[in-house]
Amino acid sequence: MPNVTATDPRQIRSRALILDAAVGHFLEHGYLGGNVDALASEAGVAKRTVYNLFESKAVLFRAAIEHATETAEAFIAEWVDRPDGEVSATALDDEFTTFALAHARAVLQPRVLATRRLLIGEVARFPELAADYYERVPARVMRALAQRLGRYASSGMLRVDDPEAAAQHFSYLVLGATLDQALFAPGILDDTDLIASRARSGARAFLALSAPH
Amino acid sequence: MPNVTATDPRQIRSRALILDAAVGHFLEHGYLGGNVDALASEAGVAKRTVYNLFESKAVLFRAAIEHATETAEAFIAEWVDRPDGEVSATALDDEFTTFALAHARAVLQPRVLATRRLLIGEVARFPELAADYYERVPARVMRALAQRLGRYASSGMLRVDDPEAAAQHFSYLVLGATLDQALFAPGILDDTDLIASRARSGARAFLALSAPH
Repeated sequence: MPNVTATDPRQIRSRALILDAAVGHFLEHGYLGGNVDALASEAGVAKRTVYNLFESKAVLFRAAIEHATETAEAFIAEWVDRPDGEVSATALDDEFTTFALAHARAVLQPRVLATRRLLIGEVARFPELAADYYERVPARVMRALAQRLGRYASSGMLRVDDPEAAAQHFSYLVLGATLDQALFAPGILDDTDLIASRARSGARAFLALSAPH
Repeated sequence: MPNVTATDPRQIRSRALILDAAVGHFLEHGYLGGNVDALASEAGVAKRTVYNLFESKAVLFRAAIEHATETAEAFIAEWVDRPDGEVSATALDDEFTTFALAHARAVLQPRVLATRRLLIGEVARFPELAADYYERVPARVMRALAQRLGRYASSGMLRVDDPEAAAQHFSYLVLGATLDQALFAPGILDDTDLIASRARSGARAFLALSAPH
């Protein structure tokens, strides 16, 4: 067996190639229909390299899901966790519209939807993986958004009785219908104008609900 | 081969047993992991009976999906397609709250969610089946709801600029967050109080948005 270390540039490159290929492969074929031989060939590596880096198909599947969620986590770091002290009341409309568009674009992209479909379809086989994804991604966004809405309410910028409910209302006004449709019919993801117009319409509805008068 | 007719009571009973078993079986095992031997045993029929009634696993899978959507179609017939001429403006709050609760209960039940997960997980293999389900169930509810909201707007009972957007806002305010969570973490379906309280909160938000003043 070769001497494998986490800092070996060839192994890092192989790992990245395999993970990129694995997400696409499992999306197309599902977990059970996934084939490590075919996946290795798609990644341009030897089957032995896959098993050197990932113990089994199940281990690779979990790693592929983690890899695919990095997009979502980058969105959370950039948009959800950043400080909001600088937002003025007059800029709140722009803030929510910009956030709504970023939120919709972050969720409504092929890689994220692929991950969602894989996990939703594999809830029976990998219940902990699906529940963990839900907690780490959509629930985390919802909690951070509830905290932010609570702060806006405390400073009188918004009228929000229940920040948790308000965070859900905001998110699903902005992207609920599109997300539901995209899970069944991926073609809608190509219609970026529709996605943006629904996100703006949802943000306007939320602000109309929560204006402090 | 036995003389099979559509009205043979034994065949009708076998068909129902097989379809009931098939939905549960495919939910647990997925399409590829589904096994017709095991499924026949769970239905309490011979494997030959399954193949007499359903030509192949793919045919049975499609029939199981159709069977599972009957619940949704019963909801549509009862709640969405019925006439609304008798609703008075003062009864609109009650009407929307009742509709919201019925809508949430119709969608957020194990059999419906099972069907959704199966189809979402099999979009790559059965794209037309998933797209057809989306059109026949959620999109049909959305279109009927938009028409109803348009009529309420015409008679001055609601203020609705875009009936299609308003129908989406209503539906996903009422059940968007719960539906998304339930796809990943089915346990939430046991919390009927939470489902009802989110549906009421969504209906209140929608009415606050659409009150005609």
